[in-house]
Amino acid sequence: MWDVIVVGGGPCGLSAATYLKRFNRQVLVLSNEDSILKKKNLQIDNYFGVNLENGTLLIDNTMAKLQTLGVQVEKETVLDIVSIDGFLRVITNKQSILTKYVVLGIGLNYSSKVKNVQKYLGKGISYCASCDGFFYLNKTIGLFGSGDYLLHELDILKNITNKILIFTPDELKLPKYQIIPTKDLKLQGTQTLEAVLANNQLYPIDGLFIADDSPGILGFAGKLGLELKNNSIVVDQDYATSIKSIYAGGDCIGGIKQITKASYDGMMIAYAINQRLNNE
Amino acid sequence: MWDVIVVGGGPCGLSAATYLKRFNRQVLVLSNEDSILKKKNLQIDNYFGVNLENGTLLIDNTMAKLQTLGVQVEKETVLDIVSIDGFLRVITNKQSILTKYVVLGIGLNYSSKVKNVQKYLGKGISYCASCDGFFYLNKTIGLFGSGDYLLHELDILKNITNKILIFTPDELKLPKYQIIPTKDLKLQGTQTLEAVLANNQLYPIDGLFIADDSPGILGFAGKLGLELKNNSIVVDQDYATSIKSIYAGGDCIGGIKQITKASYDGMMIAYAINQRLNNE
Repeated sequence: MWDVIVVGGGPCGLSAATYLKRFNRQVLVLSNEDSILKKKNLQIDNYFGVNLENGTLLIDNTMAKLQTLGVQVEKETVLDIVSIDGFLRVITNKQSILTKYVVLGIGLNYSSKVKNVQKYLGKGISYCASCDGFFYLNKTIGLFGSGDYLLHELDILKNITNKILIFTPDELKLPKYQIIPTKDLKLQGTQTLEAVLANNQLYPIDGLFIADDSPGILGFAGKLGLELKNNSIVVDQDYATSIKSIYAGGDCIGGIKQITKASYDGMMIAYAINQRLNNE
Repeated sequence: MWDVIVVGGGPCGLSAATYLKRFNRQVLVLSNEDSILKKKNLQIDNYFGVNLENGTLLIDNTMAKLQTLGVQVEKETVLDIVSIDGFLRVITNKQSILTKYVVLGIGLNYSSKVKNVQKYLGKGISYCASCDGFFYLNKTIGLFGSGDYLLHELDILKNITNKILIFTPDELKLPKYQIIPTKDLKLQGTQTLEAVLANNQLYPIDGLFIADDSPGILGFAGKLGLELKNNSIVVDQDYATSIKSIYAGGDCIGGIKQITKASYDGMMIAYAINQRLNNE
């Protein structure tokens, strides 16, 4: 049983992990190394104390520090989080782990490969098979995505309908389903989603599930029932989400998109969780 | 006329200055280079993105960045700030400058050379000659400190009484006053301050003014009438003090004493002031 599992390898998650370890808490970091800082290797100009560093270096420095401190960091994709008997079970592409608290430092993880997503949110687009799948009982579903997260969502959807079109850049062999190889998708429909366009061909569908990289803000919010506002996770003054054992910080809770802010969020979350562990 | 004068060369002040310059504001930094990060050359372990760096390096990196950005940084001690016609006049040991806004990132600047200060605050100890001097009309006053700030405070006190004992490590030639060479002081008195001990000799006094380094939290609060709570400067949710054109952040407003927090405060102050300048 971990005290805290941190989901995300950006400034919020790694800052939270650093402080939690210093508070002598059992903390595990799950990061698919997709922090935007590293992905885009951004030049860092505004962050106090560093001069013209790049994003990759900041992440690598902190990862090296966490290793020195003895913090376990695993390169795993989180597929789901489930509440069980007052604890949280975190399901990754490799294992299933119990923890008392979870920190979501998941960034702004919308699929950029599907255009115009905002227009159809709640109108045919879903990021969560377990939450919304049942609305499409025996209907025609599109599933866009890749990797373990795609397969995880498919596992849920296959019991709801057998009319599933899989849009993916992966080389998949799943004879029961129609697989359309594509790297991106366009959405069509006047009020609600009616069809998707891939490789210049139109596929009429009733709903599209996006399972790209990891659940992200909308996926976790849907799966867990976290309150959202303007597509950001709502947190209280102590950074607890509407589920009080799940904390969130950084870009996924909105506000200024700056390292200074995200690392501050992570630090404050560590203080808040440490206080709650002290009070147990 | 400056848009903003930043008082202090630590994470809060330098972070505020960086962001304000990027917002294309006219910003001047006044720093006597006494940030605790540099003074103590602290090893930095918790701050996101850097690995086993030292405090001096973080300050030097940021100073170099500010120079690249074209931000003017002056090594001056701020002696006083005065409200004039809706603007602020900042008085340093070298000049007097007008500005629209001031950011106080002055750290925890209590005199460590006078022991037991907290016990006698408001009971014979003052950090502000212009606020409290008159209470000691024609009484015997001690003045502890050094440098320009000492002389600035003496300039005010000399019109209030001619019984002034100056305790200082400086080599001063001021024939009208008794000068006691000392680096530190001990305070004595049952309820209120009754005497000070320097070089094992007791000096009975009615009140002691401390003018060490710069006004610090208690000095500025007194001079300006800033609201204090637990010896920290009170700020609102936008980091404005009880004087709305003066902002404060970092250690001087209380809270967690961490670089992450102080640099966050500085960033938020820059956003808040920039918004107000936009609305002008």
